[in-house]
Amino acid sequence: MGLFSKDIKTMDDLFVHTLRDIYYAEKQIVKNLPKMIEKASNPALKSGFERHLVETEGQIERLEKVFQMHGVEAKAVNCPAIDGILKEADEIAGEVDDKRVLDAALVAAAQAVEHYEMTRYGTLIEWAKELGRNDCAAELAKNLEEEKATDKKLTELAEGGVNMRAAAE
Amino acid sequence: MGLFSKDIKTMDDLFVHTLRDIYYAEKQIVKNLPKMIEKASNPALKSGFERHLVETEGQIERLEKVFQMHGVEAKAVNCPAIDGILKEADEIAGEVDDKRVLDAALVAAAQAVEHYEMTRYGTLIEWAKELGRNDCAAELAKNLEEEKATDKKLTELAEGGVNMRAAAE
Repeated sequence: MGLFSKDIKTMDDLFVHTLRDIYYAEKQIVKNLPKMIEKASNPALKSGFERHLVETEGQIERLEKVFQMHGVEAKAVNCPAIDGILKEADEIAGEVDDKRVLDAALVAAAQAVEHYEMTRYGTLIEWAKELGRNDCAAELAKNLEEEKATDKKLTELAEGGVNMRAAAE
Repeated sequence: MGLFSKDIKTMDDLFVHTLRDIYYAEKQIVKNLPKMIEKASNPALKSGFERHLVETEGQIERLEKVFQMHGVEAKAVNCPAIDGILKEADEIAGEVDDKRVLDAALVAAAQAVEHYEMTRYGTLIEWAKELGRNDCAAELAKNLEEEKATDKKLTELAEGGVNMRAAAE
């Protein structure tokens, strides 16, 4: 976008831009999850990431449905936020050798991703409602509920074992 | 850090690294909030950001106390996640001309920041407890509660006016 252009003029523009931002983010997450699955040692964590990969693919399809409902092209815009979150996850994982400490770091990284998605979906749902697009809001709410459930499972996993075993090392 | 070094060996190392990550993040937020205050038009949003700037300075002091309690140097490590979140906030704000749409974008950006902090503090509190550092956990919990309260206020502000007026444009 040009240096002097102001391409977002209305709430609708902002809604569509942010939809494209989370669309990019979900696609990056699909690319990154296989690396996290490979690095995870705890079987519950590994299978949790595997399930979340399948779930994320479904979320991308749901976003494509929202684009269609709203009559705009399903395209991704660059999202420096998710790039930064995933870069940090990658960097920290590269610094950790011990498998159990690595698992704890992976849980923390995954929760940072979930929280980013939760805040974006929360915002998008509000904006969709205000724009009179309750149909889009309902679809986006399904993605939000899945992200919240994933975050909760990660917390339980961290409290129930991953961190405890690492701290006892 | 060297390409072949694995500098995070224990849960304690991971805790300290993540503490330094959020310390960097809080300092970047203090640098960025004045820009957001300047851009905000809604008086409640503007004063909310002003209050949060003062609060963030207090959170940095609290983190310095945690470093001291844990007997490690208070230093910041690069945090690509917050850099990405703030870069995205800056980019999007640059694309919006209409003041009310800009306010809605600023609220969304601030909530992305709060969610990043919430997830990091949540993780740090868990790890502190597991490391037997309930004293550190208690201090970190104060920061977490403040971030949660700020996020809640932002949601109320968004629901109560900022977005509604922008959508009605």
